[in-house]
Amino acid sequence: MDNRPIGVFDSGVGGLTVVKQIVKLLPNESLVYFGDTARVPYGSKSKEIVTKFSSQIIRFLMTKNVKAVVIACNTVSSNCYEILSEEFPQLPIIEVVTPGVESCLAATRNKIVGLIGTYGTVSSGAYEKRLKAADPNIQVYKKACPLFVPLAEEGWVNNDVARLTAATYLKELTDKNVDSIILGCTHYPILKACIGEIVGEGVTIVDPAKATAQRLKEYLENHNMLTDNTEEAERLFYVSDKSHFEQICSRVLHEDYHAEKIDIEKY
Amino acid sequence: MDNRPIGVFDSGVGGLTVVKQIVKLLPNESLVYFGDTARVPYGSKSKEIVTKFSSQIIRFLMTKNVKAVVIACNTVSSNCYEILSEEFPQLPIIEVVTPGVESCLAATRNKIVGLIGTYGTVSSGAYEKRLKAADPNIQVYKKACPLFVPLAEEGWVNNDVARLTAATYLKELTDKNVDSIILGCTHYPILKACIGEIVGEGVTIVDPAKATAQRLKEYLENHNMLTDNTEEAERLFYVSDKSHFEQICSRVLHEDYHAEKIDIEKY
Repeated sequence: MDNRPIGVFDSGVGGLTVVKQIVKLLPNESLVYFGDTARVPYGSKSKEIVTKFSSQIIRFLMTKNVKAVVIACNTVSSNCYEILSEEFPQLPIIEVVTPGVESCLAATRNKIVGLIGTYGTVSSGAYEKRLKAADPNIQVYKKACPLFVPLAEEGWVNNDVARLTAATYLKELTDKNVDSIILGCTHYPILKACIGEIVGEGVTIVDPAKATAQRLKEYLENHNMLTDNTEEAERLFYVSDKSHFEQICSRVLHEDYHAEKIDIEKY
Repeated sequence: MDNRPIGVFDSGVGGLTVVKQIVKLLPNESLVYFGDTARVPYGSKSKEIVTKFSSQIIRFLMTKNVKAVVIACNTVSSNCYEILSEEFPQLPIIEVVTPGVESCLAATRNKIVGLIGTYGTVSSGAYEKRLKAADPNIQVYKKACPLFVPLAEEGWVNNDVARLTAATYLKELTDKNVDSIILGCTHYPILKACIGEIVGEGVTIVDPAKATAQRLKEYLENHNMLTDNTEEAERLFYVSDKSHFEQICSRVLHEDYHAEKIDIEKY
């Protein structure tokens, strides 16, 4: 039994889609969320700089006495998980790629799958490597969709521009007859309806957030680290810049939270 | 006469459109450019955080012994110019808003003008205030176009998505019968052809970069600070993250430059 909070972080608001699933599955667990809104986005930045930012964030979360950290960001999970695990060997770190891979393997029937994400996630090869390790016959087609994040943040989630952008990006994948597409960026669930409309009903859209929450739960169970708290858990939100975090937060989580600004560069 | 270099900075690559105009007008002046590619973009971030980032950058440029600094970023110019001038009283600082305002006043005939830029630039009211101070009869309609920067960076500068996005953003302005539109973001000249196609030939597109270079030249002349260098000037480029800076740099400046990565958070 361990009543310390769980740390969750992302480059910005995208990770809130993972928080939503954790809250559903583990409502009594306390959470500390950090969104790096001053330096968002990570997806087109180098592995080196994203690793540096992530280390600072984990050091900050450790000052909040977290029992585990969830990397609610595909760019960080794909590029920096191994380095971060080495840097923080004492801390259980859960990432989003492995749960996404497992959900995709369960979903595909024809073994032709698509992966969409940021440049950083797609070029890392992390999803591909793990999918092929699990099933060498699987075919993976991938496409970086860098405009999806700004579209989601602009609130253009199902207008003509969003649909035309999705059609332009996804044609390469649907032409290959993929039967499932992994949303390899925690922002993308916000565009799920639009993406679904473009790819059609025959294609399963895989959102790793749910499976990530499930993996976290299993880890805590197996290591006897679940909370015995039976009351409403405490959820704290920190950001590196105020911007519109609180509005998006209440839109995603259907509850109002205050976000405290901290100077992440000091960590 | 002053042979020290001129410092120029932006959140990323956008400021290179200003560098291009400075190189044209002042080919013998040495330049030190800094692009904050690790923390780009600035346009949706708070005034407080953008001021902090800009102070760090000016402190870095001062270590390079610059004789003046050009803020080649509308978000910083609109929100932080006064604060930065107070923080660095010993340093001449040239910004892009005043030159943009003057070019727009020269261009408009019907005194109905449009301003496009980031959320930070548009909401600051900086352009509006100065336009109305110069001519109280001028009408200013403004529109934040946050998708233009990622479109420019994706290289989608004149495809169907770019045109539909431009049409969606600019309709409000053309409906108001504006006869000129200020490109209030140093990235936007990259989309100039597309924007021009949407607004039509009757609307003058005002790019503040040219007038900014002119203002810099006048300042240096008036203060006897021009270089007496007659050879090819030295141009140094620094970034906070490698990413694709060098490719975009050679595309904008038609010359290959090496960009050195530095840790801006230390300044």
